[in-house]
Amino acid sequence: MCGGAGTRFWPFSRESRPKQFIDFFGTGQTLLQMTVDRVRRLVPEENIILITNEQYADTVREQLPGLSQEHILLEPARRDTAPAVLWAAHHIAARNPEASFVTLPSDHVILRETDFQEALRRGFEFVEQADRLLALGLPAKAPNTAYSYIQKEDKMPRHDDIFRIKTIAEKPGREMAEIFVRSGEFLWNAGIYLWKAKSVISAFNKDVPDMASRFDVEPEFYRGEAEKDFIDDVYPKTSSLPVEYAIMDRAANSYVLEADLGWSDLSTWNALHAISPKNKDGNVTQNCRSLLYDCKDCIVAAEGEKVIVVSGLKDYIVADTDNALLICPIEAEQRIRNIVNDIRERFGNEFT
Amino acid sequence: MCGGAGTRFWPFSRESRPKQFIDFFGTGQTLLQMTVDRVRRLVPEENIILITNEQYADTVREQLPGLSQEHILLEPARRDTAPAVLWAAHHIAARNPEASFVTLPSDHVILRETDFQEALRRGFEFVEQADRLLALGLPAKAPNTAYSYIQKEDKMPRHDDIFRIKTIAEKPGREMAEIFVRSGEFLWNAGIYLWKAKSVISAFNKDVPDMASRFDVEPEFYRGEAEKDFIDDVYPKTSSLPVEYAIMDRAANSYVLEADLGWSDLSTWNALHAISPKNKDGNVTQNCRSLLYDCKDCIVAAEGEKVIVVSGLKDYIVADTDNALLICPIEAEQRIRNIVNDIRERFGNEFT
Repeated sequence: MCGGAGTRFWPFSRESRPKQFIDFFGTGQTLLQMTVDRVRRLVPEENIILITNEQYADTVREQLPGLSQEHILLEPARRDTAPAVLWAAHHIAARNPEASFVTLPSDHVILRETDFQEALRRGFEFVEQADRLLALGLPAKAPNTAYSYIQKEDKMPRHDDIFRIKTIAEKPGREMAEIFVRSGEFLWNAGIYLWKAKSVISAFNKDVPDMASRFDVEPEFYRGEAEKDFIDDVYPKTSSLPVEYAIMDRAANSYVLEADLGWSDLSTWNALHAISPKNKDGNVTQNCRSLLYDCKDCIVAAEGEKVIVVSGLKDYIVADTDNALLICPIEAEQRIRNIVNDIRERFGNEFT
Repeated sequence: MCGGAGTRFWPFSRESRPKQFIDFFGTGQTLLQMTVDRVRRLVPEENIILITNEQYADTVREQLPGLSQEHILLEPARRDTAPAVLWAAHHIAARNPEASFVTLPSDHVILRETDFQEALRRGFEFVEQADRLLALGLPAKAPNTAYSYIQKEDKMPRHDDIFRIKTIAEKPGREMAEIFVRSGEFLWNAGIYLWKAKSVISAFNKDVPDMASRFDVEPEFYRGEAEKDFIDDVYPKTSSLPVEYAIMDRAANSYVLEADLGWSDLSTWNALHAISPKNKDGNVTQNCRSLLYDCKDCIVAAEGEKVIVVSGLKDYIVADTDNALLICPIEAEQRIRNIVNDIRERFGNEFT
């Protein structure tokens, strides 16, 4: 899934270039490319399907030139993740009714690649045995209010780390998040799901029948030219819904596999700071030649070979791109959305 | 005079592009071009002579395409202002032994153009009457420790605002500067001098005979091809000396004309802040699209059309160019010189 838009990493992320398309760590690979690489070790490349908004078609082709055209599903409208997952399930089932697949966001970071692959391997085994929906959950290490939490209940027999899902809670308040973490019952939701295509379709049929019936057509509508016409017609009419709400939180057969993957959804500059290597003063410098004097716990990011000198800042974001520069306290990062609106109003779309 | 180098406005000023060559206020004119414009209203263009280091020859020609080649004097070595003034005096005297001229820095700003022209007009009148060296002095409005101060003594008969110079003091300490300002006897030295060419030569003969004798050759050495050969030989051998120290502070016939010209030597970011229009929070924004949130008394400067967002800073410099960005408290600006050295060591000359 790589259709997300977002401005929380402005000026690095832009409407025309959300964060999945950015080389965040200056490694020469964008988050999308890193995600595909991560999956490619387990799944043959010809089985990788990308779903994105049609606005990003060119960017996707540019960043993944090896991916064949018919493996890029283009959403004609933004409808959140539920319709995307349902479309993918039908698209896959039309080719192999027994197929299982993993759905994953393209803009997250996972540091423990081996553990990740092991989790996927065991996850596939689990969902291929029966009609099951499986999430990956991370040990909740801090009361982060930007995350989605999965409450686990009964442990599955013969599995130390797979549990039934009791409930899924989106972005709790601070107090609630602290209770979640203390309870030991909650995991961070990585937004990574494993399932068989037919389990997905069946779950939608049960829990979101309106949406399910729109997509419930003969397999030939999910092939070749017909697919585009069909989707262009049906997609804009469907509701916008996250897959967590649509099926995972409601289904009786939803499970979570707990694994510590060194995961971050990179949802904010703060999250990026948390996961990045720091110097002795807690400063993170991304992709730039920087000289920091008397700085503490800052994050300094630039494009290219620019030299950045910062003196006397604490807990600040300095993010510099070609046509925009942001200097802002990390604690004020929730305001970036409003800032971006202000910029659009004052200076136009080219900067947002 | 436009041979000065300096890094105090880094990253805007660079070794290859000192501040006289920069469009500081985003008006489309560099400080040099503004200075020439200011003088052109009083002095015919064919009488304007520019003295600069040969390193800047191309930049000068580019910025002043109307100036004829023979009016650009190229210093083969940096020797401060005394040899520059002495050379200019000989160069001018070789063409007109009775000529008077004004010597002025090319990287200052003067806001009261009419008062400036009136001061020059009266200054020329004063130095043409007799063998006199005349400085322009500004009312010392604050104990600025970066300036040169002129102590005035006896007022000249029939002149309300021309005084004999008692002494010239370079960059006093804070305490001394406060005494200067309180005394009412000291003026800021604008570094602008009026004199006859032969008065300059005569003053050098008296006070700096070693240097004077090097330049004391027949007028034909100050014309055409011969001049370049002569200067290339003699200039590197001469001492490096400021004109204040060489003659103005020692000569018995040195005077100062007091005038309030809205002058600034733009020697520091702070000086630029002081002279620039501010918004209600005391912020100065130069040449950029800026959005400041909770900022006070900052100076934000960028090249081109870049958008700059700053949140929560007080008394800061934010100076952004193509390949370098500086974020630094205004009070730490004396350290910019060291910062530039650090950058040269770490990242090489291309950034300094």
